[in-house]
Amino acid sequence: MKFSLPQLLTFTKNILLKIGCSEEDAAIAADVLLSADLRGVDSHGVARLSGYVRLWEAGRINAKPDVKVVYETPSTAVVDGDGGLGLVVAPFAMQVAIEKAKTAGTGWVSVKNSNHYGIAGIHAMQALQHDMIGISLTNASPLVSPTFSAERLLGTNPIAVAIPAQNQPPFVADMATTTAANGKLEILQRKGEEAPLGWIQDKEGFPTSSPYGVKDGGALLPLGGDREHGSHKGYALGAIVDILSAVLSGANYGPWVPPFVAFLQPDPHPVGEGIGHFFGAMRVDAFRPAEEFKDNMDTWIERFRNAKTTPGNDRVLIPGDPERELEAERRENGIPLIKPVEDDLRALGEKFGVAL
Amino acid sequence: MKFSLPQLLTFTKNILLKIGCSEEDAAIAADVLLSADLRGVDSHGVARLSGYVRLWEAGRINAKPDVKVVYETPSTAVVDGDGGLGLVVAPFAMQVAIEKAKTAGTGWVSVKNSNHYGIAGIHAMQALQHDMIGISLTNASPLVSPTFSAERLLGTNPIAVAIPAQNQPPFVADMATTTAANGKLEILQRKGEEAPLGWIQDKEGFPTSSPYGVKDGGALLPLGGDREHGSHKGYALGAIVDILSAVLSGANYGPWVPPFVAFLQPDPHPVGEGIGHFFGAMRVDAFRPAEEFKDNMDTWIERFRNAKTTPGNDRVLIPGDPERELEAERRENGIPLIKPVEDDLRALGEKFGVAL
Repeated sequence: MKFSLPQLLTFTKNILLKIGCSEEDAAIAADVLLSADLRGVDSHGVARLSGYVRLWEAGRINAKPDVKVVYETPSTAVVDGDGGLGLVVAPFAMQVAIEKAKTAGTGWVSVKNSNHYGIAGIHAMQALQHDMIGISLTNASPLVSPTFSAERLLGTNPIAVAIPAQNQPPFVADMATTTAANGKLEILQRKGEEAPLGWIQDKEGFPTSSPYGVKDGGALLPLGGDREHGSHKGYALGAIVDILSAVLSGANYGPWVPPFVAFLQPDPHPVGEGIGHFFGAMRVDAFRPAEEFKDNMDTWIERFRNAKTTPGNDRVLIPGDPERELEAERRENGIPLIKPVEDDLRALGEKFGVAL
Repeated sequence: MKFSLPQLLTFTKNILLKIGCSEEDAAIAADVLLSADLRGVDSHGVARLSGYVRLWEAGRINAKPDVKVVYETPSTAVVDGDGGLGLVVAPFAMQVAIEKAKTAGTGWVSVKNSNHYGIAGIHAMQALQHDMIGISLTNASPLVSPTFSAERLLGTNPIAVAIPAQNQPPFVADMATTTAANGKLEILQRKGEEAPLGWIQDKEGFPTSSPYGVKDGGALLPLGGDREHGSHKGYALGAIVDILSAVLSGANYGPWVPPFVAFLQPDPHPVGEGIGHFFGAMRVDAFRPAEEFKDNMDTWIERFRNAKTTPGNDRVLIPGDPERELEAERRENGIPLIKPVEDDLRALGEKFGVAL
């Protein structure tokens, strides 16, 4: 069943008001959350709303946080999220990076004491309107095993980079540093299909094609899948995201990152505060005139988009193309929700007296 | 046959003096080049020396460059390499990033009009002695096809990140954004072995296991290997490296990057100047006290290194471990060169009257 964007925005905002968020925070968080549904990252959109609420019920999300800069230099800052929704903390921190970039050329903000921040890409895209390159990283609950590890030590730790162009739409990469995101396993489970080898290992560390491999105590694999195909590179990328997001800010890192689900308890001996993010903003004209840069980006994009394709494929995609096309379609025709998500939202609405 | 580090350093420096490099530049370039041999990246070390010389003979490398900053803000700069050896331009540009970081907290330098800069990691490591995180990226001759492309549009475009720790050795990631580096194909060719699927496609764009696939007009594949295993992520990473290194600086990007080999001519209609690099330096204490950060890095490294392993593996590696161990061994016992490389160096020595 499909729902209109305004309908889901209003519903989300009203739920967040009920748990005590300010009007402004509820609106920002709803925008960030729904941007995932619009862009087709359904696992990170309204499907997660009841999860955030359960974390609030468990006392692990502060609905009225005092988000602030606690340390800074001309081009850097550390932001303390005060246990708030990452959906609110992240836009604040990205704005700090943008303001730093206005004067110093670039701005770099590491964030501690935050929570899950929705999709990585939307925060990076905040820089585009300022003719800046935006970067957004976050660590996440440990579900990923480094190469040769049988333990889960990293999250799916995404990297998002948004780069403005002139007449072409912007370049927007937004990727988990794993072969496949966790959301894809849920899709396979619903369809009753196997996962390709290289996505998952079982709890002993053997390759498995069971889409329940992670639920059964196994782990997602770093981008590359196995050592022969470069999984040590995906592991290194996920590790870099973890370190910049959390070791630099003083958040929890590696296996200590608090779980997103409320029924799992955070480690009783944390190594930092909450989860961590990292944001960057680079003024394009801190390197060369913005028009020159953006004209060259157009040339870059056109050359790649029009490249000769491999057999059976009709075009080479620019990072961000599929999400942008889906967003246009969903803004027009509505956002499809699968039945379990719709039921979950209706139950949430009933509990808080908010109509869907 | 093995050669001592001082022997190869002296030889390399003397050859570079013969082509007209200054004493200082020749010493810097020899150090950078040999760091690859020490760290086991044999494809990027002295094996390339005669290639650099041929580029100089073809008038494509300037042995007496006027390397300088041509554009800057408090945290950024663009460096013009004046057609010099990347082995010399890169340490200069990284030092600019480090100086910027001293005052602005971070420094970011995009470089145009350069040439191949050796191994990426060594430049990132320049930041470590200053308690900074170092980042080093470069574009390179087009040998890689984006997902769904039958054309070569990107280089192996490496990402290197060096992060200091306290008592533990530093974290040093240095990776091509492809499944496998080109040097690995040469090893397979010598051994007469097949390449794993996911490394290469043939010139029509079909998967191939021939180690000659790239030589025969095919391409290396982005990290991930195929769409199902996330090659669009490796493609996006390689693209980001290309854009930061070249679109930001005004160097050649994508398929326009000049080939490393002197027998292939650069595109007669370049879109920029030379090849491009990108460097970053982030002062750790621009985020939190350096001792705190480095203590936490020790905890991070110890936790990962001591993780339970998958069957058949005896330890989880930290990025940089294999290279550091190899470096210690080769400093002690010498650097092994295969016969074709030794012959090539002896021929080069005879030509310039320099003893190996």
